[in-house]
Amino acid sequence: MSQSVSSKPLVVGLAGMGTVGGGLLKLLRDDRELIERRVGRDIVVRKVLVRNATPERAAQLPEGCELTTDMASLTDDPAIDVVVELMGGTGAAHKLISRALEQGKHIVTANKALLAEDSEDLFQLAREKNCIMRYEGSVAGCIPIVGTLTTPLAGNHIESIMGILNGTSNYILSEMTTNGMDFASALRQAQELGYAEADPTLDVDGFDAAHKLTLLIRLAFGLDYPFASMPVQGIRNMDKRDIALAREFGYRIKLIAEARLHKEADGSTRLEAGVFPALVHHTFLVARVGGVYNAVRLDSDVSGPIFLHGRGAGALPTASVVLSDLLAVARGDTPNNTGYVQAITRASIVPPEDWRSRYYVRVMVSDKSGVLRDLAACMADEDISMAQVIQKENEENVVPLVYMTHETTAQAMSRAMQKVQEAGILMAEPVYYRIL
Amino acid sequence: MSQSVSSKPLVVGLAGMGTVGGGLLKLLRDDRELIERRVGRDIVVRKVLVRNATPERAAQLPEGCELTTDMASLTDDPAIDVVVELMGGTGAAHKLISRALEQGKHIVTANKALLAEDSEDLFQLAREKNCIMRYEGSVAGCIPIVGTLTTPLAGNHIESIMGILNGTSNYILSEMTTNGMDFASALRQAQELGYAEADPTLDVDGFDAAHKLTLLIRLAFGLDYPFASMPVQGIRNMDKRDIALAREFGYRIKLIAEARLHKEADGSTRLEAGVFPALVHHTFLVARVGGVYNAVRLDSDVSGPIFLHGRGAGALPTASVVLSDLLAVARGDTPNNTGYVQAITRASIVPPEDWRSRYYVRVMVSDKSGVLRDLAACMADEDISMAQVIQKENEENVVPLVYMTHETTAQAMSRAMQKVQEAGILMAEPVYYRIL
Repeated sequence: MSQSVSSKPLVVGLAGMGTVGGGLLKLLRDDRELIERRVGRDIVVRKVLVRNATPERAAQLPEGCELTTDMASLTDDPAIDVVVELMGGTGAAHKLISRALEQGKHIVTANKALLAEDSEDLFQLAREKNCIMRYEGSVAGCIPIVGTLTTPLAGNHIESIMGILNGTSNYILSEMTTNGMDFASALRQAQELGYAEADPTLDVDGFDAAHKLTLLIRLAFGLDYPFASMPVQGIRNMDKRDIALAREFGYRIKLIAEARLHKEADGSTRLEAGVFPALVHHTFLVARVGGVYNAVRLDSDVSGPIFLHGRGAGALPTASVVLSDLLAVARGDTPNNTGYVQAITRASIVPPEDWRSRYYVRVMVSDKSGVLRDLAACMADEDISMAQVIQKENEENVVPLVYMTHETTAQAMSRAMQKVQEAGILMAEPVYYRIL
Repeated sequence: MSQSVSSKPLVVGLAGMGTVGGGLLKLLRDDRELIERRVGRDIVVRKVLVRNATPERAAQLPEGCELTTDMASLTDDPAIDVVVELMGGTGAAHKLISRALEQGKHIVTANKALLAEDSEDLFQLAREKNCIMRYEGSVAGCIPIVGTLTTPLAGNHIESIMGILNGTSNYILSEMTTNGMDFASALRQAQELGYAEADPTLDVDGFDAAHKLTLLIRLAFGLDYPFASMPVQGIRNMDKRDIALAREFGYRIKLIAEARLHKEADGSTRLEAGVFPALVHHTFLVARVGGVYNAVRLDSDVSGPIFLHGRGAGALPTASVVLSDLLAVARGDTPNNTGYVQAITRASIVPPEDWRSRYYVRVMVSDKSGVLRDLAACMADEDISMAQVIQKENEENVVPLVYMTHETTAQAMSRAMQKVQEAGILMAEPVYYRIL
């Protein structure tokens, strides 16, 4: 299709009519004046692809728009300029986008799983076909992070990205922190409020945050980090005791997604990246992100830290971001200015065992003399020094002993914990988290 | 010039070789690999316009680049694709940009004074000539606010903008808060550190923040607010006592720039906008913005609040933002996708006397009985109720009496203060600030 900007309506084929798809239809109906003012042309939806074409759904469509259950009817319709993919999942969505690109359609999607796990060929195809792929809705909810990395920050060397990329987990941790709830109750409450799915795996086990981090790594560093190799630890086993104890030290526990570029002595770079719960000092802005909010902190050589904060979840917010992507297409955006990094190379990865960090440790020990001495000996064996120790009061003869370490590697930490367990002084598995 | 993307270098004419201009030359030299990776083509500077073409300056130029003192030599050079204006000021910069646009050059500028005060004809001319004007560097330092408002948030109805847009004032207020300095000492320190100009008027009297707010209003609301009519109050008279007293109530005093759209009953909208010192509760993210940092909070109907935080000052950070704008031009950005709001209309303005707010008030009174009663009577006359009162200990018989009011209008507040003064109970001018 021509890239000159016309005043003809931009014609959309929409795949998926769930909450985000329904929200997009609503915004397109309600915001015609805004759209006209922003881009000087209409945006009309011509076809909506659904699995079940019910009369109830047909009744929600704008005039002149029809339901279809046939993918090709959407991808191959010559009148359609842009396909909006809001089906989710990887298999069918990949097939749809691939076929639409073959037909020269631009793509707007909010599908982070697909983009993180299986999109290399799609971006390649988009380049070949001179088509736009926009996906602001796929990362960090309403925070304009894709646009920020591709345009205003394009002139910076980003050194690290750190953030809270999953609103559901953050809601659960916030409730555990503020109201002293345990994990199961906080999860149930999040489900009742519609913040968590019936199967919360993607959210609470960290995979959703890892999907988003994979996309941010590509945009910020021009590096490909294979999703399957990313270290991911979620919050399913989070004990409310640790949240309370961390607070006594002045910290909040957050599910952190982090990627950090290391410059090696020989001029090469290696990437450290992963998702993990960590203690964040309460004076940091990231510690103050509450509820379903997301936040991203970017550090760059020239600009210093930039912190972005906004809602991380919700159908209508996501729909509004998808609409913004559509506006960019309507405005005559071209593939060249959507900010693809021109050359993506495979990242050289810092092995997780080499990561350096301070640690918070909680062990349950019997209230006998000599235990602290034995524990300290195991840590000292690995050259780990203990910075602060709290010994809590007796609970049925088993005492939580909590301490923070000076900086060490994940490997040394893991070996020290192994030794502590072998020393036979623990009454339960040790718990330890990184401190940011 | 053609808008097709080529692999030919993008040729730049640079006007101004101060700290930002020098920083840009440095980044263009150091970041060739980044530029190639981001946009697949070179960016070369062909000419630099300066007032004095000294040999020292000539020595800093890249190969093949020459100094000139003749504006037309820059604007009329057919080899130049884009003119970067970093001279500052309004007169000469306006002439330069106007002439460059006439010659069909794209423009990148960081000149907020010019854009806020005298740019209507320039944007008009850019549209006629199909030229790009980019100006991310002109607002809020490293915070990607122009890009955010024009692209990722384009699908939202923004309802309000609130932020800290001047790094110098924020540095001064932060020092007064953290170290108990008075205004004059904090200003001197800011000057010594290079954060404040020898003439700090633009910064500390609020005009710089007002310039930036004018630009944000245009981008966010599609409204033109005449800069000359904007209510602006700076921090030059800030007394460190008020900063300390505000803290006792749990607040920080910040120089706030705010614009808020009011929907009237008849469907029309009116805009409330201005720059003023205000008390912000310490739990708000905006209260936690320290030093030379800037922050912007956007509220929109769909996305909820979005908060952006980053460095607000510095030559190299601004140069990096200018570079990002150049990358967008190099990438084949077109005038249509730089996010001009298509129709700018004159804002209907809420008169400052109608603004509603809670207030912090400090009056100096003699330590006699009946004073509080008389004061409360003056407030009650204007239907202003007092929420919290602190009476401080005696200082040479003159006592600061501090209170916070419930919400009232600026007009009622001003009349009440007038009455208090007429009642003859004050030993000094009253001080009052809005509470956000």
